[in-house]
Amino acid sequence: MSNKLNGIGASNGIAVASVYVLDEQPIVIPKKDATNLEQELELINSSIAKAKKDLESLQAIAKEKLGEEKAAIFEAHASILEDPAMAEEFTALIKEKNYNAARAIDEVSKKYIEMFGAMEDAYFKERAADVKDVTQRLIRYVLKMPVLDLASISSEVIIVAEDLTPSQTAQLNPKYVKGFACNVGGRTSHAAIMARSLEIPAVLGLRTILSTAKEGDVLAIDGSTGDVEINPSDKSVWEAKAKKFLEEKAELEQFKTKSTITKDGYDKFILEGNIGSPKDVAAVLENGGEGVGLFRSEFLYMDNDHFPTEEEQFEAYKKVVSDMNGKMTVIRTLDIGGDKKLSYFAFPEEMNPFLGYRAIRFTMDRKDIFRDQIRALLRASAFGPVGIMFPMIATIDEFVSAKKFTLECKAELEKEGVAVGKDLEIGMMVEIPAAAVNAENFAKHADFFSVGTNDLIQYSMAADRMSENVTYLYQPFNPSILRLLKLTIDGAHKHGKWAGMCGEMAGEPDAVPLLMGLGLDAYSMSATSITKARSIMSKLTLVETQELAKKALECETSSQVLDLVHKLMSDK
Amino acid sequence: MSNKLNGIGASNGIAVASVYVLDEQPIVIPKKDATNLEQELELINSSIAKAKKDLESLQAIAKEKLGEEKAAIFEAHASILEDPAMAEEFTALIKEKNYNAARAIDEVSKKYIEMFGAMEDAYFKERAADVKDVTQRLIRYVLKMPVLDLASISSEVIIVAEDLTPSQTAQLNPKYVKGFACNVGGRTSHAAIMARSLEIPAVLGLRTILSTAKEGDVLAIDGSTGDVEINPSDKSVWEAKAKKFLEEKAELEQFKTKSTITKDGYDKFILEGNIGSPKDVAAVLENGGEGVGLFRSEFLYMDNDHFPTEEEQFEAYKKVVSDMNGKMTVIRTLDIGGDKKLSYFAFPEEMNPFLGYRAIRFTMDRKDIFRDQIRALLRASAFGPVGIMFPMIATIDEFVSAKKFTLECKAELEKEGVAVGKDLEIGMMVEIPAAAVNAENFAKHADFFSVGTNDLIQYSMAADRMSENVTYLYQPFNPSILRLLKLTIDGAHKHGKWAGMCGEMAGEPDAVPLLMGLGLDAYSMSATSITKARSIMSKLTLVETQELAKKALECETSSQVLDLVHKLMSDK
Repeated sequence: MSNKLNGIGASNGIAVASVYVLDEQPIVIPKKDATNLEQELELINSSIAKAKKDLESLQAIAKEKLGEEKAAIFEAHASILEDPAMAEEFTALIKEKNYNAARAIDEVSKKYIEMFGAMEDAYFKERAADVKDVTQRLIRYVLKMPVLDLASISSEVIIVAEDLTPSQTAQLNPKYVKGFACNVGGRTSHAAIMARSLEIPAVLGLRTILSTAKEGDVLAIDGSTGDVEINPSDKSVWEAKAKKFLEEKAELEQFKTKSTITKDGYDKFILEGNIGSPKDVAAVLENGGEGVGLFRSEFLYMDNDHFPTEEEQFEAYKKVVSDMNGKMTVIRTLDIGGDKKLSYFAFPEEMNPFLGYRAIRFTMDRKDIFRDQIRALLRASAFGPVGIMFPMIATIDEFVSAKKFTLECKAELEKEGVAVGKDLEIGMMVEIPAAAVNAENFAKHADFFSVGTNDLIQYSMAADRMSENVTYLYQPFNPSILRLLKLTIDGAHKHGKWAGMCGEMAGEPDAVPLLMGLGLDAYSMSATSITKARSIMSKLTLVETQELAKKALECETSSQVLDLVHKLMSDK
Repeated sequence: MSNKLNGIGASNGIAVASVYVLDEQPIVIPKKDATNLEQELELINSSIAKAKKDLESLQAIAKEKLGEEKAAIFEAHASILEDPAMAEEFTALIKEKNYNAARAIDEVSKKYIEMFGAMEDAYFKERAADVKDVTQRLIRYVLKMPVLDLASISSEVIIVAEDLTPSQTAQLNPKYVKGFACNVGGRTSHAAIMARSLEIPAVLGLRTILSTAKEGDVLAIDGSTGDVEINPSDKSVWEAKAKKFLEEKAELEQFKTKSTITKDGYDKFILEGNIGSPKDVAAVLENGGEGVGLFRSEFLYMDNDHFPTEEEQFEAYKKVVSDMNGKMTVIRTLDIGGDKKLSYFAFPEEMNPFLGYRAIRFTMDRKDIFRDQIRALLRASAFGPVGIMFPMIATIDEFVSAKKFTLECKAELEKEGVAVGKDLEIGMMVEIPAAAVNAENFAKHADFFSVGTNDLIQYSMAADRMSENVTYLYQPFNPSILRLLKLTIDGAHKHGKWAGMCGEMAGEPDAVPLLMGLGLDAYSMSATSITKARSIMSKLTLVETQELAKKALECETSSQVLDLVHKLMSDK
């Protein structure tokens, strides 16, 4: 009997294949006290050794299948296992509280998982999955439970599971694993990211797939729409979908090397990539990115046990700037605080951290720390065009002071005889309503703007998008948001500056036509979204997008705006 | 030797008099366990009886000196003493934990003080002072410590203290107590509110006055500027200040009965009062208020142990509307959540409560609760002109739904044969940037706007004004804020609607000229600020304020805006 479900489309593509139910024996942590402390400590050590051996072979498989970069996750896992602080915590719980080995690992891992899981940034949220993955493996060894070997799958299947860990996804052989469908997860969960890397379709957040689909069933999944059908009644429908998807994919493939130009020949828009570390540059270039519109410098700070030195930062920035080979790299200065914490620095407790001491408010208050970053950025600018971008600017005073501080550091370096680039721009994020509404005056001082849509929407709507009760107010297409974008873009242009966007919205297919019409110059997004955006631009005339934007600004609701976009795009 | 200090001017006026140091013996709570439980319980009861007797005589003094309304605070204190829940908590700690009486009272009172103290609303913050005041009195009796009698002061003095409790301020005889100067407190602290009622000057937040000024010194204080001089070197300076203040005061007195009109004859601006309970209407009328621009309905909910019924609410609204005698009363629907909690309803825990489930987001989600309020408001509108105002509106959808719900309730009432007023307006707070920036479209649906400046500034700047680290971003005069005000006011006028303001800014002498120039129609403020605003308006031509506003919108910083205002006002 056919049965339809809908979840979150997490990795595009169509697949139809037999169900493979991944149903691992659940871990039950024994509560009993340790009787022999030495024995428990020894059990942990031997399990760590086994787990490390696994990770080595997984890394080798992943390297072959996914490339060096994705395989690096297993190095990260190994480094979690080797973390002396964590090992000390295991030992302390066993020695001081008489915990058995499994309970000690479970207790410590929960603490780390909670810490990472509470962070907003997708990059750090993933870390929670990593810790969980590696510690669960460890616990399975400690409890002498079987550890599943997915690499042995040798017929075409779609995996059905509660969730997939990073190490499980890395074992999947795309030759046989045609897709997967999970009860939990969303577009930014680890399983989603891996599925996109492996280029296999995935639908997540299905809630009931594990209880509905059985071994022996045939499953059809659409990784774009999130549609899933168990034992499809009409296979030809799915075949047609698959054909269409492959045609589109082939078309998008061509846009990797095409130039960015509208149907009526406007060629000044540029499409760029957002990156979190120097490793991400490759994907931006491979997808035809014309620059890096946002390099989040947080990873250097959060993935560390001390404030990174000027040298450490310089090396990272220089690598990105050099690899970009003459294309612009916009680097955002430290955006810490709010929900992003550092293990080695205590931020004040605040009732509303999103409205608190963070980003530029912290760095300009702590110039002793900020100086190292600014100097590193300035030195990196000798290797190619760099944009230094300040986050969370609310007032012109703040921008002017931060720019002044940067120019002082520049003068200092020049005095020391250290090279600083000539193609240096100093700009700001527009993510606070006060900046957007008065952009025309900020533009007298800033070389460029880059809109951070997540925060701009959050503050403009006064709605924390992490709070489930008010997510309905996260409305990128609300006319109020479009008006703030217009003020920002017009403000920049009035003074001959450029305006970009580096928030999630820049790569949204529904948003691109509107942003074109509003005159946005630079679109920075996930590397894999670039070709789609370029394809959309090629199908639209500048004039029709301008008409669209004009009408959208006069709408009253998000859905009216989206209707206009869909109407325009329906015959493209 | 003369010695100058500067604190927070909390109650206007100039005073020069001898120092009276109020240095109470500090309470030290004994830690020792109770030996005889019955004895401790008896001690609490007899102390409560003594404290209640005190409160009765304090109430009589206060009634004579401050009037019925202010004396009511002692009824509130007595009701705290009579609260059976609190008495039960005392008893439980003594019986179950063997606490001595003083420690039990201290423990319980701390819990309540913390709860009220954590609230943002000035009205509820005061409650913390009330609980502290009354429980400290109780503890002094339990510990057999002296309780100071300030009513016995019989020569002209200025009181110097760490802080003054509500019951201490109520004892002050303004015939002898010429002012006070305290180490702690600000404009909204209880001591400040009482000083303004008593019309005696006060400077608070001086930090070191208690350690600097000694018995025998002469103190001069300026309650407007916060300036304080110990043993003033030139008394004539202070005499001149005092003379100027009294002249100004006499001038303002006249404005209580004058009409609101600019120097060039524009008479469409109206000055109104903000109120928290029906009792506050008297002060609005007495100061020449032309309406109530904000009746905060929260007090009905927070000062209660259940959601108030339709009848309970109707009685309160009807009282205000009737007392206003034909003048407009704007009543804001329940603005709960965020930092304002209810003892009888559990709001979800949120990471950023100011960006969360509150106000209209809560009430439209819980129409079962909202219906009672809307029906009560509609029924009250039969007794005079009423404006129903929805707080925290972010999208047109939200406003339209809330208005639709109100009209459904109205139809329901009419069907039941219940009278609803004809002069009913349905409007909204503009306190979220998304509403301000698209006001011209909201104005198609709303009958009026009222700007809530505290929240609007907080969200527009993305800065929690309760967080000490970012208070520098609370900038009412920032050009970005002025631009949002302009969009709001112009948006209203485009559709023939009126725009008001009910935030703190409406009564700020520096803000009034700007708001006039921006075209704000209704100014709602503390009753005591009305005459000053009216006086300012009488000295300015509409044209010069319009020029001022135009220039201010082009400024880059708050201080540039304030310079323009001060320049204009310097020769008025």
